[in-house]
Amino acid sequence: MTQSLTLSPGKRFRLDEFDPDDRGDFKSKKEAEEKTAENLRRLKALQEMLYAQQKHSLLIILQAMDAGGKDGAIEHVMGAFNPQGVQVTAFKAPTPEELAHDFLWRVHKATPGRGMIGIFNRSHYEDVLIVRVKELVPEEVWRKRYDHINAFEKLLADSGVTIVKFYLHISKEEQKARLLERQQTPEKQWKFAPGDLEERKRWGSYMEAFEEALTRCNKSHAPWYVIPSNRKWYRNLAISEVLIKTLEKLDLRYPEPPPDIASYVIPD
Amino acid sequence: MTQSLTLSPGKRFRLDEFDPDDRGDFKSKKEAEEKTAENLRRLKALQEMLYAQQKHSLLIILQAMDAGGKDGAIEHVMGAFNPQGVQVTAFKAPTPEELAHDFLWRVHKATPGRGMIGIFNRSHYEDVLIVRVKELVPEEVWRKRYDHINAFEKLLADSGVTIVKFYLHISKEEQKARLLERQQTPEKQWKFAPGDLEERKRWGSYMEAFEEALTRCNKSHAPWYVIPSNRKWYRNLAISEVLIKTLEKLDLRYPEPPPDIASYVIPD
Repeated sequence: MTQSLTLSPGKRFRLDEFDPDDRGDFKSKKEAEEKTAENLRRLKALQEMLYAQQKHSLLIILQAMDAGGKDGAIEHVMGAFNPQGVQVTAFKAPTPEELAHDFLWRVHKATPGRGMIGIFNRSHYEDVLIVRVKELVPEEVWRKRYDHINAFEKLLADSGVTIVKFYLHISKEEQKARLLERQQTPEKQWKFAPGDLEERKRWGSYMEAFEEALTRCNKSHAPWYVIPSNRKWYRNLAISEVLIKTLEKLDLRYPEPPPDIASYVIPD
Repeated sequence: MTQSLTLSPGKRFRLDEFDPDDRGDFKSKKEAEEKTAENLRRLKALQEMLYAQQKHSLLIILQAMDAGGKDGAIEHVMGAFNPQGVQVTAFKAPTPEELAHDFLWRVHKATPGRGMIGIFNRSHYEDVLIVRVKELVPEEVWRKRYDHINAFEKLLADSGVTIVKFYLHISKEEQKARLLERQQTPEKQWKFAPGDLEERKRWGSYMEAFEEALTRCNKSHAPWYVIPSNRKWYRNLAISEVLIKTLEKLDLRYPEPPPDIASYVIPD
């Protein structure tokens, strides 16, 4: 299953070749949810070893169009982790202090230490997405950023950080349905942001920007996965599959106890 | 139930008046676990409103003797929260940079912003606990800290932070059993720290230090709760009850949508 979500490094691709409605071989939501629940138990066990071993860290980057399901993925998939080993960072419009530094400054501070899982809700990719689409900096500035991002992610990967990047892929119609739901459902109205409607008008420019970012910054040490996300249950399942595959490659294990552990006497 | 866990502000009390084996009116573990599961669903719903409302924040402080159950409480109770709205900070031995500042400097940085839940696994109370017991600073220094802590917590409370402090109360025998279990169970051995055995020898001094800290820093805006913790299932239940009671006092609600929300047209 994860094979179909993988992008071949170096290959230029188009997002419209990916079906946001894909549901793999799953016939029903219930069947998928059972598998997801099983995956989440496995992920929790893998995380405990990651935390105990203090050798690796995991950085999960989530990007999507508005209403693409970043918050939902964090709640329903990452919610399975022990919160003590998790740091979620939501990157919003930069503060004046952040803008007074290079674009990776605030991001670097939020990277996970050994044993930890860092989750980025949006990330440095915004600096080649919204920044590009809305021309917040000149092209000569944002165009250099793909290389900066690749160098930065290589530094992390060489330093024990396993990076996994998810683009949550929804259709333009699905976004409309979700924005309408936010507008009309009382307990979801707090998520309704009129600014999202302006961004929606730039859908095509965003697709171009995503395609270039995913193509140029797709490395074997920091791969992008395109997650079909029109169906939330399939999104959760697909993310959990990729995370298991990623963590299982790390040869996680509990650290060896000191050889003399049995010799300690616990005093009364 | 939460009444029995509350300490009356201003009253001097002794920890040996609290039974770490208490299980309230619960006849079985199963009965308590069902109630806890129900509480956790309620806590998650309350957290969503806290997060949406962006008005209050919640600071949960956990203190206990080694193996008292701080990690377990975070995993099994706080694990119910949406990780996006939670920051866990584990305070370990201070770094040289932290020691170059006042003892509240590193703590202040970790306090939760509006809408967030901050969880402290150990806290500034260590500066009147281990620091006092092991005489890491002179008495004239740590003795002033109760007032510093009270002033700091008042500042937070006056600024929208709801503070709740848990002392997880285990017996000396229960600690021995848990340390033995860590020593002997392969997947728990990574938690076995020989230094804990030295601390155990100072049990009496720690009890004195806890009693003074809990007595002197027990304010209605930052109350201590003594949680009977020999039984993990009762500990989890009791903590969840206190958290619900605390959050329900805040009059949490989803924010009002803008009055013109219905007038926006979502473009095709």
